[in-house]
Amino acid sequence: MDKFYVLIIANKQEDNCDLILINRGDPMAFEAFWRKLGDKCTMVISGSDLMSYLSDMGNVCWFLVPELAEAINNLHHGVDNAVSDGRHIVIGTGSTQLYQAALYALSSPGGPEPISVVSAAPYYSQYPAETDYLRSGLYKWDGDANTFDKNNGAYIEVINSPNNPDGTIREAVLAKVNRSAEGKLIHDLAYYWPQYTPITGAADHDIMLFTLSKCTGHAGSRIGWALVKDTEVARKMTRFIELGSIGVSKESQLRAAKILGIVCDDYPNFFEYGRRLMSERWNMLRQVIRQSGVFGLPEYPLEYCNFTGKFTNSHPGFAWLESKEDEDCEKLLRAERIMARGGRRFGADAKYARVSMLSREEIFNIFLERLSAIQGGSISNGKHLGS
Amino acid sequence: MDKFYVLIIANKQEDNCDLILINRGDPMAFEAFWRKLGDKCTMVISGSDLMSYLSDMGNVCWFLVPELAEAINNLHHGVDNAVSDGRHIVIGTGSTQLYQAALYALSSPGGPEPISVVSAAPYYSQYPAETDYLRSGLYKWDGDANTFDKNNGAYIEVINSPNNPDGTIREAVLAKVNRSAEGKLIHDLAYYWPQYTPITGAADHDIMLFTLSKCTGHAGSRIGWALVKDTEVARKMTRFIELGSIGVSKESQLRAAKILGIVCDDYPNFFEYGRRLMSERWNMLRQVIRQSGVFGLPEYPLEYCNFTGKFTNSHPGFAWLESKEDEDCEKLLRAERIMARGGRRFGADAKYARVSMLSREEIFNIFLERLSAIQGGSISNGKHLGS
Repeated sequence: MDKFYVLIIANKQEDNCDLILINRGDPMAFEAFWRKLGDKCTMVISGSDLMSYLSDMGNVCWFLVPELAEAINNLHHGVDNAVSDGRHIVIGTGSTQLYQAALYALSSPGGPEPISVVSAAPYYSQYPAETDYLRSGLYKWDGDANTFDKNNGAYIEVINSPNNPDGTIREAVLAKVNRSAEGKLIHDLAYYWPQYTPITGAADHDIMLFTLSKCTGHAGSRIGWALVKDTEVARKMTRFIELGSIGVSKESQLRAAKILGIVCDDYPNFFEYGRRLMSERWNMLRQVIRQSGVFGLPEYPLEYCNFTGKFTNSHPGFAWLESKEDEDCEKLLRAERIMARGGRRFGADAKYARVSMLSREEIFNIFLERLSAIQGGSISNGKHLGS
Repeated sequence: MDKFYVLIIANKQEDNCDLILINRGDPMAFEAFWRKLGDKCTMVISGSDLMSYLSDMGNVCWFLVPELAEAINNLHHGVDNAVSDGRHIVIGTGSTQLYQAALYALSSPGGPEPISVVSAAPYYSQYPAETDYLRSGLYKWDGDANTFDKNNGAYIEVINSPNNPDGTIREAVLAKVNRSAEGKLIHDLAYYWPQYTPITGAADHDIMLFTLSKCTGHAGSRIGWALVKDTEVARKMTRFIELGSIGVSKESQLRAAKILGIVCDDYPNFFEYGRRLMSERWNMLRQVIRQSGVFGLPEYPLEYCNFTGKFTNSHPGFAWLESKEDEDCEKLLRAERIMARGGRRFGADAKYARVSMLSREEIFNIFLERLSAIQGGSISNGKHLGS
């Protein structure tokens, strides 16, 4: 199993950062934007604030701070990427907790067999472990939605759009071939924001997951939210979070409200900044990739973005590299001291690997530099580290 | 299943608060202390702070903010209620998440049958639901440790000391009769602080759980910590929290560091304040109970407290009321518009009920007033609400 450990192996004889880690999506790219804001986004909490467990007892999600609920609604109204009116907002410790809350809500009280959870490959590499680590009798990971036996009856399909790792826009796979009422859907829309992809319409699904980490870059706050149509599902998701952690940090909720408030008051500045940054990085990456001739990258269609009012491409938070020679892509990169996450982890072939496009600028530049050293089927400056 | 919903039913014809809720442990009693501190405990976070997932990559618990680790160590050194030197600190979203992390660490990868989890009745009413809600194949709730079949082999015993609901000091039950190497222990020491109980020594167990909620009253921050002897157990607990929520709110961690720093710098002020408050409340409660003649309360031995240097009694965060006439205690209280939690929820008899001693002052006073209206086996002012 993968560990979320960063191993920066210092080797001063060569350079200060022998093995750069670009395998995780720590979204530090936007830090500079927030630093420039100075005091405008500063928050102050006194010692006697936020002491109670309780936030809003009139709300299904009783631990949701009302200021955050309002900020989330304003944000979706402004970006128009998802329908939030008439939806319940359930808050979580990151969308990771909400993904599991949704599985619980859609599967409890459960039957004799756990319900199958599937997602089309390449799928987010954490779904299998997050689904199976407790060996729940309610649900179990069943792999690629494309190869799932459609006659199996009940299932939960997770649709990640834009998809992590490959940035594609997705729709449910199984619902197309099997309009069984027993199929339930979770839409993980973590990357459906204007800096990553054209906003082509307001998504309107039963359960939609979002996270502050990918929206504004504040991963350390561990704030995710779900927009949920059905009251009973929202109630069960709330119950899951009550049993798992008796709610969600109020400090983080209030700070998220502040941050999202600034994003909204200042339209379209943050998203414009993010879009420009991602676009520049993707241009640089594509240039390096073209020159090296070793890798392929997905192409994304030009689409009209309602938010920017322009035709734009996608600039996903991850790049999904493919070795043109069908070599093991993770090993190829690692030989050049780039630690990526190999395709097998995503239910795909080892010729693929995922690298983050959201690292700090200095890390991203080292990444490009090292990538450009990989030339035409062989490694120009190979110091094979093994793996 | 119990909901963490507060139903304050306003009935303006009678008074503003028809049904007072004293069934949950929302620890608002200490709010006044923190308010008096004014700016001394205020924290300021700028928009670009705390953005990364990562905190301390050299630590097993890689998402633990170093300032909080230091504050926790200082606190245990100062109070001397637990051995923290040479222990791993694992941080959680409340001790609720850490309880489950400990179950996971002690039971994974798991065998053909889930391991039994037990605790001596009366036990904390949330243990059964927190253990069983996902129907894990790793562990399952098996009830009262006193009636557990000792020949069953592997088990996990949770020792809550001082115990919620009855405030007693506890030791492992099964280890006494069955020194099997297969028994594993979790010590939940949420209430082992000087305001609640004499500190008679530094606890030194394999896994010890603490929470900011009960220590300082900051429940909304959702910060718990575990002191863990074994590195592999700490690693697995960290892994659980990584899979469940990719870490713990950094805002809350930093604020907890600030709050605990003030508690330490200002010894013994906070704990003295808390002890005096709890002692006054218990004196008032015992007086009302004596006058009514309807209820019994546990008696606690006078013991020498190393922290205060005095002989003191326990003044637990909950009162464990017993109906002397073996009536249903929860119903008895509810008839007087006091919502308590009945004994059955704790694996005990319905003649018991638990009420919080940590509510805000105005709620506590209404509670005493209503309790004093319950006289000698009948209800003096009975407006039976049903249940």
